[in-house]
Amino acid sequence: MYVAKCRQGESFTQGKIVPYGDISISPCSPILNYGQGLFEGLKAYRTEDDRIRIFRPDQNALRMQTGAERLCMTPPTLEQFVEAVKQTVLANKKWVPPPGKGTLYIRPLLLGSGATLGVAPAPEYTFLIYASPVGDYHKVSSGLNLKVDHKYHRAHSGGTGGVKSCTNYSPVVKSLLEAKSAGFSDVLFLDAATGRNIEELTACNIFIVKGNIVSTPPTSGTILPGVTRKSISELAHDIGYQVEERDVSVDELLEAEEVFCTGTAVVVKAVETVTFHDKKVKYRTGEAALSTKLHSMLTNIQMGVVEDKKGWMVDIDPCQG
Amino acid sequence: MYVAKCRQGESFTQGKIVPYGDISISPCSPILNYGQGLFEGLKAYRTEDDRIRIFRPDQNALRMQTGAERLCMTPPTLEQFVEAVKQTVLANKKWVPPPGKGTLYIRPLLLGSGATLGVAPAPEYTFLIYASPVGDYHKVSSGLNLKVDHKYHRAHSGGTGGVKSCTNYSPVVKSLLEAKSAGFSDVLFLDAATGRNIEELTACNIFIVKGNIVSTPPTSGTILPGVTRKSISELAHDIGYQVEERDVSVDELLEAEEVFCTGTAVVVKAVETVTFHDKKVKYRTGEAALSTKLHSMLTNIQMGVVEDKKGWMVDIDPCQG
Repeated sequence: MYVAKCRQGESFTQGKIVPYGDISISPCSPILNYGQGLFEGLKAYRTEDDRIRIFRPDQNALRMQTGAERLCMTPPTLEQFVEAVKQTVLANKKWVPPPGKGTLYIRPLLLGSGATLGVAPAPEYTFLIYASPVGDYHKVSSGLNLKVDHKYHRAHSGGTGGVKSCTNYSPVVKSLLEAKSAGFSDVLFLDAATGRNIEELTACNIFIVKGNIVSTPPTSGTILPGVTRKSISELAHDIGYQVEERDVSVDELLEAEEVFCTGTAVVVKAVETVTFHDKKVKYRTGEAALSTKLHSMLTNIQMGVVEDKKGWMVDIDPCQG
Repeated sequence: MYVAKCRQGESFTQGKIVPYGDISISPCSPILNYGQGLFEGLKAYRTEDDRIRIFRPDQNALRMQTGAERLCMTPPTLEQFVEAVKQTVLANKKWVPPPGKGTLYIRPLLLGSGATLGVAPAPEYTFLIYASPVGDYHKVSSGLNLKVDHKYHRAHSGGTGGVKSCTNYSPVVKSLLEAKSAGFSDVLFLDAATGRNIEELTACNIFIVKGNIVSTPPTSGTILPGVTRKSISELAHDIGYQVEERDVSVDELLEAEEVFCTGTAVVVKAVETVTFHDKKVKYRTGEAALSTKLHSMLTNIQMGVVEDKKGWMVDIDPCQG
């Protein structure tokens, strides 16, 4: 894993690769007491010709900067972030699965470390990256069965829903467990302000399709600006769909022809059913679904099956490091 | 400090007192990645006759249980919590300041530890308590100057605002820093749903006084059920005030005669001014203020100046441990 530290008011300097293992941290640190932490998630892919590549790390680097600004933390520079991800992947290159067998999931963390008792910015920041080989995020091979949550909310305006803050995740575990114990794959949250518009799942964005129009909630503070979300929007637009970022009501969701979700972990995953109170709606999935096409388009770029005309892939130089 | 661990599905057993120092934790732990953590805050007091006492630790124990239920964590039992606090205070008894010179602040933490990659309950929980001598929380000797925040919100319905989750704190640091740089002591948040009702400060509850009526926002999910809040409500009622827990609008706040805030750290602190957009309102403070009277009543009980008829104080037996 990669570890770098920086004191408040200073900048990150070169970190180092150390063996994966527990870290040592002050019981008084803001990450342990006040949730001052951000994370990122991206993947490394092994191509058929045995190259290792990562997907749009600049986007994750940028999002960590936005999040750090929101949580009053000092982030690494864009270059430091990308370089650190590369070093981590290189150090773990034997753990990148063969093509078709999975990917190496990379988890950068920015933590408020050091010791301080009051609610305030941390005296020290730790930038850490670990990695793990992963297969499919959701265990179902077909589409997801979602429950619309009308009890819990994920985010609110003037909160941290628009950045990848650790504080957005533990609060949704209860909703997720309740839904899973009732047989659902995941939960779809509604906006806290009106309870009428859809927002996102516990850890991925959502899209609905009707005719030629693909719609997804706008990133106006309560929606995580997903890298896969952005990439899929671009790919859908490329093949002639009209992509709209706007408020999407539950009513529209229930009347959609197709629903799918996106995220680094899930990639693109069709939603088979949505349950809202007592109403259960079934959507198009399988070969005829747009999500199937978009999933292929994206993974073909990621796996090097088709040429990356967008400049999204970053090669890891095996001779480096 | 005190440390105890328990695996998921099991219960906490007896922890132990260890020297204060950094803890070792997995980079994959839910506290570092997903904010799965709760904290508490309480104080130990040294009386004139050199006894050491703590204030209502059962209330903090209960609140940690409510929080653990919300964040899907395993908490210590009420008895384990109180016993662990006592052990921690005993081990740090030389650090309890003399009467009038401050108190020993005690910080219990419940952390999602162990290693897990996905958003899920932790495989292990760590219950940890550290302590530090403290003086006044706010550096001002007179009343606080608050800014009403109309940009950020602290909590939302269906969120975690009603429990002492770490996730409620790092998101408010930005608002606090902006207010402090503009010369304010602290921020007063409005409800996220309507933006019309007052909620609380970054780390304490609020009360308004008009005539014989003392009002404070209700603990219906977005307000932290403060132990000092509850105690002060009871004391105000005891001396003939009508105490109302109900929505309090900004308009009412601006028309109040007196405003004060409560919390373990601040105890009871008068608010001197509130600024809402361009409007600045000044309130009664000093000897004539109810908050001054309530502050005396509470600290007299805590410091053993008057008899504790409510059974709030728990003595630490110096012969134990």
